[in-house]
Amino acid sequence: MIVPLQQPPDRKCSPPKLDERKHPNLPSKCRCGLSSSPGARAVFMSMKLSLNWLLIFAPIAFALRFWPGQANPTALFVCSAIAIVPVAGWIGRATEELAARVGEGLGGLLNATFGNAAELIIAGIALSKGLTSVVKASIAGSIIGNILLVLGLSVLLGGLKHKEQRFNKTGARTAVISLSLAAIALVIPTVFHLAASGSPGGWSPAVERQLSLGISVVLFITYFCVLAFTLKTHKHFFVGAEEELEEKTQRWTKSKAVVVLMIATGVVALLSEFLVGTIESVRASIGVTEVFVGVVVVAIVGNAAEHSTAVVMALKNKMDLSVGIAIGSSLQIALFVAPLLIFLSYCFGRPMDLEFSLPEVFAVVASVYIIFQISGDGETNWIEGVQLLSVYLILGILFFYLPEPFARH
Amino acid sequence: MIVPLQQPPDRKCSPPKLDERKHPNLPSKCRCGLSSSPGARAVFMSMKLSLNWLLIFAPIAFALRFWPGQANPTALFVCSAIAIVPVAGWIGRATEELAARVGEGLGGLLNATFGNAAELIIAGIALSKGLTSVVKASIAGSIIGNILLVLGLSVLLGGLKHKEQRFNKTGARTAVISLSLAAIALVIPTVFHLAASGSPGGWSPAVERQLSLGISVVLFITYFCVLAFTLKTHKHFFVGAEEELEEKTQRWTKSKAVVVLMIATGVVALLSEFLVGTIESVRASIGVTEVFVGVVVVAIVGNAAEHSTAVVMALKNKMDLSVGIAIGSSLQIALFVAPLLIFLSYCFGRPMDLEFSLPEVFAVVASVYIIFQISGDGETNWIEGVQLLSVYLILGILFFYLPEPFARH
Amino acid sequence: MIVPLQQPPDRKCSPPKLDERKHPNLPSKCRCGLSSSPGARAVFMSMKLSLNWLLIFAPIAFALRFWPGQANPTALFVCSAIAIVPVAGWIGRATEELAARVGEGLGGLLNATFGNAAELIIAGIALSKGLTSVVKASIAGSIIGNILLVLGLSVLLGGLKHKEQRFNKTGARTAVISLSLAAIALVIPTVFHLAASGSPGGWSPAVERQLSLGISVVLFITYFCVLAFTLKTHKHFFVGAEEELEEKTQRWTKSKAVVVLMIATGVVALLSEFLVGTIESVRASIGVTEVFVGVVVVAIVGNAAEHSTAVVMALKNKMDLSVGIAIGSSLQIALFVAPLLIFLSYCFGRPMDLEFSLPEVFAVVASVYIIFQISGDGETNWIEGVQLLSVYLILGILFFYLPEPFARH
Repeated sequence: MIVPLQQPPDRKCSPPKLDERKHPNLPSKCRCGLSSSPGARAVFMSMKLSLNWLLIFAPIAFALRFWPGQANPTALFVCSAIAIVPVAGWIGRATEELAARVGEGLGGLLNATFGNAAELIIAGIALSKGLTSVVKASIAGSIIGNILLVLGLSVLLGGLKHKEQRFNKTGARTAVISLSLAAIALVIPTVFHLAASGSPGGWSPAVERQLSLGISVVLFITYFCVLAFTLKTHKHFFVGAEEELEEKTQRWTKSKAVVVLMIATGVVALLSEFLVGTIESVRASIGVTEVFVGVVVVAIVGNAAEHSTAVVMALKNKMDLSVGIAIGSSLQIALFVAPLLIFLSYCFGRPMDLEFSLPEVFAVVASVYIIFQISGDGETNWIEGVQLLSVYLILGILFFYLPEPFARH
Repeated sequence: MIVPLQQPPDRKCSPPKLDERKHPNLPSKCRCGLSSSPGARAVFMSMKLSLNWLLIFAPIAFALRFWPGQANPTALFVCSAIAIVPVAGWIGRATEELAARVGEGLGGLLNATFGNAAELIIAGIALSKGLTSVVKASIAGSIIGNILLVLGLSVLLGGLKHKEQRFNKTGARTAVISLSLAAIALVIPTVFHLAASGSPGGWSPAVERQLSLGISVVLFITYFCVLAFTLKTHKHFFVGAEEELEEKTQRWTKSKAVVVLMIATGVVALLSEFLVGTIESVRASIGVTEVFVGVVVVAIVGNAAEHSTAVVMALKNKMDLSVGIAIGSSLQIALFVAPLLIFLSYCFGRPMDLEFSLPEVFAVVASVYIIFQISGDGETNWIEGVQLLSVYLILGILFFYLPEPFARH
Repeated sequence: MIVPLQQPPDRKCSPPKLDERKHPNLPSKCRCGLSSSPGARAVFMSMKLSLNWLLIFAPIAFALRFWPGQANPTALFVCSAIAIVPVAGWIGRATEELAARVGEGLGGLLNATFGNAAELIIAGIALSKGLTSVVKASIAGSIIGNILLVLGLSVLLGGLKHKEQRFNKTGARTAVISLSLAAIALVIPTVFHLAASGSPGGWSPAVERQLSLGISVVLFITYFCVLAFTLKTHKHFFVGAEEELEEKTQRWTKSKAVVVLMIATGVVALLSEFLVGTIESVRASIGVTEVFVGVVVVAIVGNAAEHSTAVVMALKNKMDLSVGIAIGSSLQIALFVAPLLIFLSYCFGRPMDLEFSLPEVFAVVASVYIIFQISGDGETNWIEGVQLLSVYLILGILFFYLPEPFARH
């Protein structure tokens, strides 16, 4: 492992195991390749505070939905979207607490499952309503949003404050290569469709779904291999030399964690239900396409917690955390959430395939390619943030102008 | 900043500010990521001499064009093409002199505008005649020509003389990532066309132009951010430790610089007019396609000055300069000239979009990908020159065999 | 050249010149970028023994083919496939012995020609029968098979035994960039077909073949440049500091080498004849497509010798050798075997073009991209093996589900 020489001890990575007890808003992202430092604690506390006041939007959303005579879908959409952010933070906190009590194996699994709980719930509800194009758009949007928007803003704002910032490039490598693998996987159904359409036998949705299921299984297994690599066999890659500060916060009891987890998950589910239920009318009233809503709006809402945390970490010059949250979150979406949604679609009796539209496929490939270049030297500066945000803007323009519904190539 | 240990002091990069007064033929290219050393002075003097004798072709071109009874378009094409090279060198020299007198901000802008003056004037004239496919082909051709042909020849010839050559890879990184961003931007209109064609709403040229305009604005802003990064906030990335030799050449007065700039620009404009006006008949008589002329011929002519300078620098073992000229020039074309031409096309009342043909898009993406790999380690050797030239040859073969006019996918 | 500091002396690369006398089963692969160490000798001896018992399948294959009344194409296919493996090993051994006796220049050429003798013979016979889609599928399959399956298994198994493994990344660079160049070349005919189809002039097979021939010539010349770079001008890149152990094995005489080479080549040719002759009926009885047979089955058989050697080397912690075999073999296929088959196709009077199907092109590009990322840091660990194998599995799933015959885009 090559550790940058200039890196002061307190910027080195700490063991994920300890971290996971402390950071309510960044549960398991840091462990998919990169880890965090305990000095970030105070920040998270203030973060939680700053996010908790957004909880006020939850009762407003409920009122808008159930108060008789009310029918303002746009207001409901906005309030639900905002209210999801702090509740998603509580899911993260409860997951951490629970994971710390059940041992490493089950704990890792819990984190892996609930780490992107908000995205998963929103997408699951959209899936149950048959809105597969919103589901796929939000998968693609979450991947590119984390890499380009979340990391881009973090690198830009961090870079404006600190001339040069460093992170552990060894950890980032594993995550970025896994993202490349996922990008290849997401291109395959599109390639298959094009090739099969030109054959006499032709293309059939059933074969497309079998292909997608096979790919999902491979991605899912790879995800758990990456977890094993990060948490077990090569956790020394991600461990710094510093002595961990002792954790002073009082731990939750197991039952408290379970109760909070259940309540928060239920609330997010309800709010997601409101959100997804109003997409159609909001889309029509604002005049943007379903795909634009999925790629931009849903993706930003589902990742708001990571977003704010990553930026705060970058300002505090903790680029390891910032990069870890952004890349790790994309990785979880691509290797865990996307396959899981395919499996879920079979449970719902509406099998979904993994075929993304050409613009979505292109956006994911371009984002993964740029993050590979940016992350290669373990250093960031503000121009790299500008470059990431430029790619995000350009892709946003593409999705904005795309007519609806567009054909899936 | 990681400086290669073996690099002798006199190979380190010097501040762009000082350079720009000395090198008539490489105005602002070096500043987009990499910079030059003062030892290169003697070379440039001889360069200028060796290029100035080509000025003889300017009166020949005028004679061929205006002498009554003459009508040899091929000779006119060839003479105009050759004569543009030394006059473009004088634009560069005058720009440098003027930039040195007006302060850094306005000077940088001057350099950015006139750095690729020849390409810009040729393309502008082609644009005013409605030859948009020649304009696009020459944009694509300039990008790949600088990366593959100019740099390939420099690396090969330099590598045959010097076993291993080094350059500042930190500076090259920023430029190469910006090129990747530009490559992504240039793919987007093609992706949009494909996706929109398959939708019921369908594809419309008006939306394509709006999309292209939006992308151009983002690229243009990114270009000025890169300038700010290179010239202001992170110029220490590009500055070596050595003491600059004092410049002994007498400076031009501001008015002399303005007069030379105006005359040289006017002459290039006239020669470009001849060049573009004869493309059609030359194309027909040689039997190659319009796109081949744009991608290969116009691109080589427009970049001839950079070309010879980059090769001479490589032979002198100044790879920082050589790489800086080649990559920086491609960067200027992609992030500055291409958007500017889109803006100009609106002034001319013939709005152009940024949709390149599939072969052009592929050529740009492949070139940027290869330069990313080659530039990654900050070292070059002759086989890397062979590899760059091989890609150029292969792409040249593709454009040679393409039927005319080919459909834009 | 940057040598990793932690690398113990006995892991450094040794001169290819000496190596080539010792390793019967890995003739010239190691020289295309990476080289081997003499400590590997004992392994090879046991390898040869373990492979030689497979020779028993050769007489069985002959019996199945010529014994009257027998007609079991599947058994003949399987026996021929297995029997090719050890005989291919003997071709390698004889080539090494002969190369060592005829001097460096001719020796290098011999190695280059016979290094992938089995693949070349199988493909040549398929070509003579007009099975061009099998030929192309086996070219694509050999490239991706070596990069993903051979190297993936080596890295995974080596990584399970050794926590971290290192290899000479300077050597790997040259080979990987050459592979990228080859990948670009293989995409071009597909791009040409798409672009030309949309033009009024249209696409014609004759122009496609001219284009392919031009590309093949460039690739072929590049291959010999890479050989010159590796064997002559920059062999110090590939030479370690250690003292070579003296070779004790008795050398073959020149005539013995020639006789063994001729007999082994003849036997492989006959077995390949059986193999190719039964592809059609095996394909039909197992129910897989011709392309799947080419990409997966033929590619695995043709590279079985490299396969076992690379894995054994990885287990012995000789990653330089393992990486060198896998990447070098892909390189030979792409830059030497593929162009040679195009040239051969003209001798057979059935000119073949280089246009691969979209899935094949995608598979090659994806594999080359992943190997570029994996090989970038000169280190491997088990998760990188998992990542390579995941990509192989995903591509295998794609080829498995593709309907037959599929249109070539």
